[in-house]
Amino acid sequence: MRFAAILFSLSFLMLSSHTGAQSAPSLNLMPQPASLAPGSGALRIDANFSVAFTGHSEPRLRHAADRFFAQLQQQTGLSRFAGKKDNSSATLIIHTDHASKDVQELGEDESYTLEVTSTGAKLNAANPLGVLHGLQTFLQLVEVTADGFAAPVVTVKDQPRFAWRGLLIDVGRHFIPADVLKRNLDGMEAVKMNVLHLHLSDNQGFRVESRKFPKLQEQGSEGFFYTQEELRDLIGYARDRGIRILPEFDMPGHSTSFFVGYPEIASGPGPYPLDRKWGVLDPAMNPTEEKTYKFLDDFIGEMAKLFPDQYFHIGGDEVNGKEWDANPKIQEYKKAHNLKSNEELQAYFSQRVQKIVTKHGKTAVGWDEIFVPGVPKDIMIHSWRGPQSLAAAAQLGYHGILSNGYYLDLGWTAARHYAVDPMSGAAATLTDEQKKLIFGGESAMWSEYVGPENIDSRIWPRNAAIAERLWSPQSVRDTGSMYARLDVESARLEWLGLTHRAYYRKMLQRIAGPATPEEFAALKTLADVAEPVKEYTREETAPFEATSLTPMNRIVDAVSLESDTARHFSELVDKFLAGSCHDAAAAAGLRSYLTRWSRNDVAFASLAQKSSLAKEGAATSRDLSAVGAAGLAAIDAIAAAKPLSPDQQSQMNAVLTEAAKPKVQLLLVPVASVQKLVGAASQAELCGPK
Amino acid sequence: MRFAAILFSLSFLMLSSHTGAQSAPSLNLMPQPASLAPGSGALRIDANFSVAFTGHSEPRLRHAADRFFAQLQQQTGLSRFAGKKDNSSATLIIHTDHASKDVQELGEDESYTLEVTSTGAKLNAANPLGVLHGLQTFLQLVEVTADGFAAPVVTVKDQPRFAWRGLLIDVGRHFIPADVLKRNLDGMEAVKMNVLHLHLSDNQGFRVESRKFPKLQEQGSEGFFYTQEELRDLIGYARDRGIRILPEFDMPGHSTSFFVGYPEIASGPGPYPLDRKWGVLDPAMNPTEEKTYKFLDDFIGEMAKLFPDQYFHIGGDEVNGKEWDANPKIQEYKKAHNLKSNEELQAYFSQRVQKIVTKHGKTAVGWDEIFVPGVPKDIMIHSWRGPQSLAAAAQLGYHGILSNGYYLDLGWTAARHYAVDPMSGAAATLTDEQKKLIFGGESAMWSEYVGPENIDSRIWPRNAAIAERLWSPQSVRDTGSMYARLDVESARLEWLGLTHRAYYRKMLQRIAGPATPEEFAALKTLADVAEPVKEYTREETAPFEATSLTPMNRIVDAVSLESDTARHFSELVDKFLAGSCHDAAAAAGLRSYLTRWSRNDVAFASLAQKSSLAKEGAATSRDLSAVGAAGLAAIDAIAAAKPLSPDQQSQMNAVLTEAAKPKVQLLLVPVASVQKLVGAASQAELCGPK
Repeated sequence: MRFAAILFSLSFLMLSSHTGAQSAPSLNLMPQPASLAPGSGALRIDANFSVAFTGHSEPRLRHAADRFFAQLQQQTGLSRFAGKKDNSSATLIIHTDHASKDVQELGEDESYTLEVTSTGAKLNAANPLGVLHGLQTFLQLVEVTADGFAAPVVTVKDQPRFAWRGLLIDVGRHFIPADVLKRNLDGMEAVKMNVLHLHLSDNQGFRVESRKFPKLQEQGSEGFFYTQEELRDLIGYARDRGIRILPEFDMPGHSTSFFVGYPEIASGPGPYPLDRKWGVLDPAMNPTEEKTYKFLDDFIGEMAKLFPDQYFHIGGDEVNGKEWDANPKIQEYKKAHNLKSNEELQAYFSQRVQKIVTKHGKTAVGWDEIFVPGVPKDIMIHSWRGPQSLAAAAQLGYHGILSNGYYLDLGWTAARHYAVDPMSGAAATLTDEQKKLIFGGESAMWSEYVGPENIDSRIWPRNAAIAERLWSPQSVRDTGSMYARLDVESARLEWLGLTHRAYYRKMLQRIAGPATPEEFAALKTLADVAEPVKEYTREETAPFEATSLTPMNRIVDAVSLESDTARHFSELVDKFLAGSCHDAAAAAGLRSYLTRWSRNDVAFASLAQKSSLAKEGAATSRDLSAVGAAGLAAIDAIAAAKPLSPDQQSQMNAVLTEAAKPKVQLLLVPVASVQKLVGAASQAELCGPK
Repeated sequence: MRFAAILFSLSFLMLSSHTGAQSAPSLNLMPQPASLAPGSGALRIDANFSVAFTGHSEPRLRHAADRFFAQLQQQTGLSRFAGKKDNSSATLIIHTDHASKDVQELGEDESYTLEVTSTGAKLNAANPLGVLHGLQTFLQLVEVTADGFAAPVVTVKDQPRFAWRGLLIDVGRHFIPADVLKRNLDGMEAVKMNVLHLHLSDNQGFRVESRKFPKLQEQGSEGFFYTQEELRDLIGYARDRGIRILPEFDMPGHSTSFFVGYPEIASGPGPYPLDRKWGVLDPAMNPTEEKTYKFLDDFIGEMAKLFPDQYFHIGGDEVNGKEWDANPKIQEYKKAHNLKSNEELQAYFSQRVQKIVTKHGKTAVGWDEIFVPGVPKDIMIHSWRGPQSLAAAAQLGYHGILSNGYYLDLGWTAARHYAVDPMSGAAATLTDEQKKLIFGGESAMWSEYVGPENIDSRIWPRNAAIAERLWSPQSVRDTGSMYARLDVESARLEWLGLTHRAYYRKMLQRIAGPATPEEFAALKTLADVAEPVKEYTREETAPFEATSLTPMNRIVDAVSLESDTARHFSELVDKFLAGSCHDAAAAAGLRSYLTRWSRNDVAFASLAQKSSLAKEGAATSRDLSAVGAAGLAAIDAIAAAKPLSPDQQSQMNAVLTEAAKPKVQLLLVPVASVQKLVGAASQAELCGPK
């Protein structure tokens, strides 16, 4: 079905190729639809706006209409609409052919067509999933114009490129309350993602109520878990939004939280307290004891009933084998069963668990490690290692999804995530049949350094770029267009209740305490251009070892993972240099930034005296002022057409090299752009007089 | 009891007068306590923090502790605390002597003492009301320091100056959902207000479920009303926070919403649709028919059971008498009963209704108009007219509260509200016995131009200044200290979930639509220094007539009622001029503002082309750029020690006079400050060279 839809889309694209998605960045759609034919004129959106439903009917469609109007009210500020109507005089007529599956399935038809004319609009879809997507597209079309709110005349024929478009949230390391998950489900609906993968257990916590094994939550969660009632509610909430919920219980490693209440299934002697530290730790299930499989059979049986989704994730990553090596009985077992390595021992475990999952009617999913030669074909590989392993699995006939390249906690830019494609690298060489085995991907929000207060800001807006990668045609890849639309989408997401922007001032206010307005402004100026260190370097650069109890109230917890200010500054530098340094407006803009930075440390240093939390930014603040001064000197040199002397250059480069080093886990992002300015100011030819 | 407490406080103040409230503005307490003796050192607040309760115990105290820890977590970002303990080793030991009344009463003891030492703290109160207040004071003491979070060593002995410290919210003109009321109750608790007055009916809507007269909500609310269940929940929520809920049903005027379902109690022939327009309208109850009083007896009987408070507000304001004049039977009745004017007719009505209220066990409250000679003494006068009428009533032995001077919708500055004292003006000349009749006051949020999205911003933070006026000693009146503390309190209030800051960017984003970052910044720069026109001039300056259906999505709905930016600019101008224009830092700060303003219209004008909502700011934006340019020219003249020529002066004054005129309901606030700069630049002596 997906393949047919793509064929249709391709032919439509050819008909309207000059008006295709890439050439119409002025429509702030995210993700970009598969195909789009703009017209002229617009449909006015005012209090008379109404919708009518025809065809298949179900409560989910009514809920969707309620949400649609609530969101339309947020977007427009109009207080009332004509609302739902039963007849064809409605502004937006929505036709649904038939029901979707009772339990949402991978690969169901999600396509829709949306035709907007200057007098009305029509949304048609095979089933409610397409309607949900089409309503989001319509909402994204509504914008303020010179003549009030309106949706432009356009015809959209749309369906996803990948059937699996997920977001993983790790609720094990830090518990994330259900209301936070709900607002993230709202965000996922807005960008047409369809799988919320919950990483429900890890060394630091077990987050689900088990009635068969109540010590799991009683002793393994410190009170932070979801009741079964809450999970059923959450699953219904997700289903209402066209989103599946994929449960993951990580095993045999990352599983200390099982052992607090049930040490008998562990490989070590116990007892096990919950882990506070991060990383790949020693505790692992005992794969050589039948009682382990008996436990898992009962446990998975219970969870398979609680979670209706066809897929069931059993983890399987990062077992260091230390507990196995230290247990003589396990060593004997390996010898007796001719298991030559811990990898083989884990493969044995995975296959046993996979059989249990199958017995309970589910399809097992596991991280790369579960893929070993001979494993049955009805598993799905979840690749954290990269496209190579995904492609290798596909070549052997295994299904897979990609998360490598989509780890939101690593602090990559949206552009960098956006460039990662499940079909790139080794996957590009697969046959068409093999390519069909790659279902899509999942962004992943690992939660060592996030809590309910800042998690939205770690997911959004960057996750919308990944959502576009997974929905839109592979040819949609213009980074400039992506960022322009991402800025708009970020504002829209805020109307859904996401706190990815609102958290920021609250956290800065806490850090600043009773600062003067000038001191607060200085903190914000610094925080606006700082980011946490990238990848897995946060531990190396930490002032103290973090655990699961460490408060997340520091500057590094507050600053954005991708600084908008630094991005705009960088764009301005590029514009200035591209104009051979003759763009007066760009020069004035740069001076404005640089002047503020150069003066900023006076007020910041004063604040750092008063607040232990602000103090962590002291060195970065001094760097920022130095960077601002260097940038101003570079601009001055360019304006005077007097290139920097070699002495000045080396002095400035030394300043910038120092400023480029992370301090207390903070990166000063504009350094690279100022290095460009200094470079230009050193070359009289590039930036000489007109 | 209040009087005794005040006497105690006075003696304590004398003992510690050098360390009294006014001399310690560095503690960010709001309201300032009655007395305060600072010590040295501080109590560290970390994860070991715990509380214990001794003495009287009740669920409300447990709820208060839960809220206390939630708020402490918000303020500090610490993830866990030791929590509640049962023994004396707790950090904060709270002792409650005895219960408060089952239904909270006016004048109950609200005093508490709070002693913080470097090793622990003790909070003592006669009853839970004092505990609630003391916990808020403790939270306000907790701040980030150079050495982590801490509360300073201090002894506070505190009680309110006035027993009635209210906030009126008009939910009749625009419905305000219960969750918005709840977050405002949280804000009221934080600043120790103790009465939420709900104006529950007006011409535009009736907001309470009546089971005896269901057509009230069915036909008079358009579906926007509170069920009795919701109200009971709200009353419990308020009681948990030491807050009474005072219901008001306005009659005989402001009552169209009664007549939609029950035209038989009106004075006109009907039928009555809900009113959409604002103002003093014609519909009024028929005071000459017994069926009116029968209706009100049944209705007030039902509502008196629903609302437990001793007081019951019957409105009574602004009857224009037109329906009475037009009804021959009413004219006959007046003649037959020797009622010489409509005022006398209304007095007759009020006294009948008051008897009904008394019959149902309540004390009637009414606006000024219900006070006429001969009315029984067991009523309370709510003064919207001013201190004179309040004092006049007190001289005759009537109780009263003041709202004149505290109308939040008029757009006064916090300083102006703060200067209004219930005991000033005519009240200052009352005898001590008469003064005791003045219970306090209420701020009033009339809702012609507020909805759920912006109401918090219209109430907060200015309401905190009024709360301080009603709680703190009359001698607490330093405006500079008030603003410094108000800025801090405003940030704290945000942690309670109030949206008085967060709403702003969302509304600007809607106005801006898909603007460029520069255009959005230009909108914000303009909005930061604009305010809605003041007092009741909004209609006169409107581009179209507003009704209850007009969307509140315009710039005038988004901008603050008191611009912080303009206040900071004004302070900077004063600082600059006070230093005879030699303060270089102030000059640089002024230039930074003025430069931005002078350049702002380029991007704004571009935005105004695209967005009909932004377009309303076009003229004000041009003014802002002109004002910025004038300010820069003034600073240049001062820097060059070349006074402005008479020609320059008159040209600039013409620009500023034009800019001072409101445009599309918007005031450009910094104009007056720039006029000061131009004035100074015109006088060589004031700002000559050093």
